[in-house]
Amino acid sequence: MTPKRFALTPGEPAGIGPDLCLLLAAQPQPHPLIAITSRDLLAERAAQLGLAVSLLEVDADALPDQPAPAGSLYVWDTPLGAPVLTGQLNTANAAFVLQTLTRAAQGCLDGLFAGMITAPVHKGVINDGGIAFSGHTEFLADLTATEQVVMMLATGDLRVALVTTHLPLREVSDAITVERLERVTRILHADLQGKFGLARPRILVCGLNPHAGESGHLGREEIDIIEPTLERLRAEGMDLRGPLPADTLFTPKYLQHCDAVLAMYHDQGLPVLKYKGFGAAVNVTLGLPIIRTSVDHGTALDLAGTGKVDTGSLRVALDTAYRMAETF
Amino acid sequence: MTPKRFALTPGEPAGIGPDLCLLLAAQPQPHPLIAITSRDLLAERAAQLGLAVSLLEVDADALPDQPAPAGSLYVWDTPLGAPVLTGQLNTANAAFVLQTLTRAAQGCLDGLFAGMITAPVHKGVINDGGIAFSGHTEFLADLTATEQVVMMLATGDLRVALVTTHLPLREVSDAITVERLERVTRILHADLQGKFGLARPRILVCGLNPHAGESGHLGREEIDIIEPTLERLRAEGMDLRGPLPADTLFTPKYLQHCDAVLAMYHDQGLPVLKYKGFGAAVNVTLGLPIIRTSVDHGTALDLAGTGKVDTGSLRVALDTAYRMAETF
Repeated sequence: MTPKRFALTPGEPAGIGPDLCLLLAAQPQPHPLIAITSRDLLAERAAQLGLAVSLLEVDADALPDQPAPAGSLYVWDTPLGAPVLTGQLNTANAAFVLQTLTRAAQGCLDGLFAGMITAPVHKGVINDGGIAFSGHTEFLADLTATEQVVMMLATGDLRVALVTTHLPLREVSDAITVERLERVTRILHADLQGKFGLARPRILVCGLNPHAGESGHLGREEIDIIEPTLERLRAEGMDLRGPLPADTLFTPKYLQHCDAVLAMYHDQGLPVLKYKGFGAAVNVTLGLPIIRTSVDHGTALDLAGTGKVDTGSLRVALDTAYRMAETF
Repeated sequence: MTPKRFALTPGEPAGIGPDLCLLLAAQPQPHPLIAITSRDLLAERAAQLGLAVSLLEVDADALPDQPAPAGSLYVWDTPLGAPVLTGQLNTANAAFVLQTLTRAAQGCLDGLFAGMITAPVHKGVINDGGIAFSGHTEFLADLTATEQVVMMLATGDLRVALVTTHLPLREVSDAITVERLERVTRILHADLQGKFGLARPRILVCGLNPHAGESGHLGREEIDIIEPTLERLRAEGMDLRGPLPADTLFTPKYLQHCDAVLAMYHDQGLPVLKYKGFGAAVNVTLGLPIIRTSVDHGTALDLAGTGKVDTGSLRVALDTAYRMAETF
């Protein structure tokens, strides 16, 4: 297998992202992995953590084709806006964070990278820094001119994609439209084929209401919206089962014959996934023209510099991106 | 420990309830357990299943004080409205089903039974039989003149209670009121003390919105309703933690210090519980003046008479009722 090159963005410089990248360098990666951040930041954080990591500076004109040896990390040096105090947010570094993301994503579009893996950013400080920013996903959708993306989390053999994501609960029902459901289902189906190598992906679809509406007694969205949409997509050959009650679907009888679950909203699908995969889940953005995976946790400012961080989710994010790149 | 007597209602006679009760009789129970149903029905179903179970008829005036021996089952004979064809619903037995529930519940109120354990009923056929019926829980609330009950499911060391239950998703947000949240929380707290012997129950409370509203960015119910209500109840001494994001709460960090989770709605709390405890979960009705536990599955008409049924949930329902009776 030809080694492919990947971009790793440590995200918020005051958080645990830099720590995770440094901890990761102890073992060799199967592919060249380039951290896009400030070299000074990594050097200081490594000293704070007492880690001996060789920071191997690279640049866009001469990116490496071989993995870095164990104990070392490739760094595409990107200048900070201001020095970083570990654990303390600083609006002066908002533009820096976005520059690291832009370098990674543009590098994917340009063929420098086979995919990008992101550590957490802090939305609040970027907005406070005067830059409108509603999250990695939206930023990458804009940068790649993608109209609709789909959030999918995965752990072990369970994948859960969402029709709606960060909406107040009272807005969810109205957001479940034929159009949205169809677009999301198409993206999920296409990316399970194109990025996960599943020729005929089997998708289990949750109802919106408890008991999937119980034949209309507990809501009509299943009858009016979900069932006809699934029926139409099935006629195209998609393997879609549902709408099923969410508290029935997440049991072995159904999950053992399933490549992905499509949940209607955030708290219908993610509690099970996080329960199963705590510390080892990955967030995958579907629908982009590039591969992007992410850790499933936040910046954990209070843990930065302490060494008390778990690289589990980052390792899963890396492994998932590597596997996706074999297909994509 | 003095043996206490319990009532077991097999529920829908055409479903798997009778099968489960007969299968259960192979092992002795620690307490006298009285099946309230038709003796003829049980005899026919036992023959169909090829099970040798001695049906020991009892009546309300002389209920036993000792457990039945292995291979036998106490039966409080209750006449059917019409003969039962296994797997086929019959509206002529709607009144029969409700009579078995009435005998069990009234027996609990009268001190004949320390608690009742219910196998599934079929709501549709009871309503089609001309009797308004919206479920076991509501029926028992009416019969015991209880204004508010709380549905809680449990498996292993996880208990999940619900603020709202069988509502269309679009009605959930408006149903989360200060009044309802306070009443449900008080019932949960009081019953964890009174029926589960927890002197100072530790309750984790979910937010309503994803990320528990993210400081108001994803909905204001946490700020306007949930937080002030919890604060007021905490001032009375209750150990309430939250509102927490549902996909954070169901992880070991939180669950290990928790006696029960209070979820705002059905599909926020139950998928995790069923995922963890499939086939071994119990449904407990809190707030009643009696102990009532139930299996967590339906009538499974297609499996009745086949022997392919799992008594796991019924065993957990029995064990839970027995343990609750030690405290209550």
